Amino acid sequence: MEKIEIAHGSGGKLTRELIENLFLKYLDFEELKSLQDASYLKLSSPNIAMTTDSYVVKPFKFPGGNTGKLSVCGTINDLTVSGAIPKYLSLGLIIEEGFSLKELEDIISTIAKTAKEAGIVIATGDTKVVESGKCDGIYINTAGIGEIKKELSPKFVKPGDVVIVTGYIGDHGIAISLAREEFDMEIPVKSDCAPLNTLLTPLFDISGLKWMRDPTRGGVATVTVELSEMSGYGIKLFEDKIPVREEVKFVCDMLGYDPLYLANEGKALIVVDRKDAESTLNILKEHPLGKDSAIIGEVTDSFKGVRLKTRIGGERLLDLLEDDPLPRIC
Amino acid sequence: MEKIEIAHGSGGKLTRELIENLFLKYLDFEELKSLQDASYLKLSSPNIAMTTDSYVVKPFKFPGGNTGKLSVCGTINDLTVSGAIPKYLSLGLIIEEGFSLKELEDIISTIAKTAKEAGIVIATGDTKVVESGKCDGIYINTAGIGEIKKELSPKFVKPGDVVIVTGYIGDHGIAISLAREEFDMEIPVKSDCAPLNTLLTPLFDISGLKWMRDPTRGGVATVTVELSEMSGYGIKLFEDKIPVREEVKFVCDMLGYDPLYLANEGKALIVVDRKDAESTLNILKEHPLGKDSAIIGEVTDSFKGVRLKTRIGGERLLDLLEDDPLPRIC
Repeated sequence: MEKIEIAHGSGGKLTRELIENLFLKYLDFEELKSLQDASYLKLSSPNIAMTTDSYVVKPFKFPGGNTGKLSVCGTINDLTVSGAIPKYLSLGLIIEEGFSLKELEDIISTIAKTAKEAGIVIATGDTKVVESGKCDGIYINTAGIGEIKKELSPKFVKPGDVVIVTGYIGDHGIAISLAREEFDMEIPVKSDCAPLNTLLTPLFDISGLKWMRDPTRGGVATVTVELSEMSGYGIKLFEDKIPVREEVKFVCDMLGYDPLYLANEGKALIVVDRKDAESTLNILKEHPLGKDSAIIGEVTDSFKGVRLKTRIGGERLLDLLEDDPLPRIC
Repeated sequence: MEKIEIAHGSGGKLTRELIENLFLKYLDFEELKSLQDASYLKLSSPNIAMTTDSYVVKPFKFPGGNTGKLSVCGTINDLTVSGAIPKYLSLGLIIEEGFSLKELEDIISTIAKTAKEAGIVIATGDTKVVESGKCDGIYINTAGIGEIKKELSPKFVKPGDVVIVTGYIGDHGIAISLAREEFDMEIPVKSDCAPLNTLLTPLFDISGLKWMRDPTRGGVATVTVELSEMSGYGIKLFEDKIPVREEVKFVCDMLGYDPLYLANEGKALIVVDRKDAESTLNILKEHPLGKDSAIIGEVTDSFKGVRLKTRIGGERLLDLLEDDPLPRIC
């Protein structure tokens, strides 16, 4: 049997076979293997962060990852930028009838590998199967819980604080765009999809760390606009400081995209007190995922909203994304 | 604008409007309203239970509920039968482009109402929109966490223990079957979809409480077969003791279904020490959701597997569900 059948989602014999022969081959947490309705977990503190995301990226396989890797990294990153140490993830699969078992195995093994490398546990799971034409291969939901170590909030952000990005932006959006094969371009851009916990959790010790966010849907522009609204202050961004790969610029020029609105899956925006900017950058640059970190902006009380100081000396107002040129990028 | 558009899932302006104008109108948890990547939560203990389920029921609206109610009840019930007090739920929505905003509002308001009545909090959420034909209206994932109050496990189950069901079985499966309108029958069967925490958590004080499970996919038969495998003992069920409504029997006869394999969404199977059977029944019967509770079987070491003592005096061996006659019932 090489394809998923409706009966794999019935809760009966085939469901059990799928779980035992495929899922538990890679996911080996004892509580998960007990196949009870819920898993018993131990935390070191009752103060937790919780998040959830569904991943419907199209195509489900792309240079630099697949929806499995994305679903683990995305939820790890949401917890981490909230000041928490990610501990446990749930995994909810919705699979289309006829989906290849080989592809499913690739996805599950990637999930297991990514989780292991990031030091988190897939604690509980669920699988549903829907008829052909009622899904797009596979949709994955992960919810995650982590232990809060550092409270972060837009309300801590103050004028004078600096805005840091942890590396090149727009890679994920462009990788997905190219993977759709709607354009006949052979340009080697890989998604930046990565778990950011080992990069960012060392920053929790920095007293001037105010706020972090991973700029996924809507990109750097949308996230800074939201920060501006929630903090009540203006954000000034410097175009010439924002790291964008030449290949990404090239594709953006060709297709009329703006890198500032493209999704990232392995980058964080960070606001720190100016006095801690240097030490923050030093910590980030020591890590492979943060070596291209840069200060790209600052918080100001001289205006509201987000203004981009362009290379040619002008200023551009940034707003929330209106209509994504690339839906289903995560 | 009366229908969901792709841009509602872009993470930009329309996403924000949807969240603020619709979701936050009903879901009013402060941390959720802060629109951060994760919510900060306080538990009273670091020993937690975690579970997840995706809900893809077809049709998404049926007598007795909708997928929203199901998604809250199902996850509450998974935590409760694990011996935990359900506290926080995450909510992940995958919505099909073109889905009615009115239907979405019905679903969200039902989620809010069900959560409130059950005393749990929708703590964090995510919304994705997929193209028309890549979903079946709406799919919902909920993950839940609860505080462990009573450790339950099939390994505590011993010969002589009794098996209790908390009421009539098969209602949900039949309600879904009839709601599909493939059969021209006007029979008033409503789904039993209900949150079981207020019914079952009072049982946590009973020392002889061993194990609980809500017999959803695969029904009472599949769940007891799994209990038998995991405990290592046989389960004897008495057909004449199992509560099945006349209407459910009638539809089963017409369509060739077996009530023992039909899904339930508001029932629990409970194994208790025989000495505590009476007190357990008394507690259950005091609650509207448990008034038809009955002892339907017992655990034995005289055989393995599950045997049903039939009305006419014979015995039938029960096995895991092979192929669900009714896929996507939850």
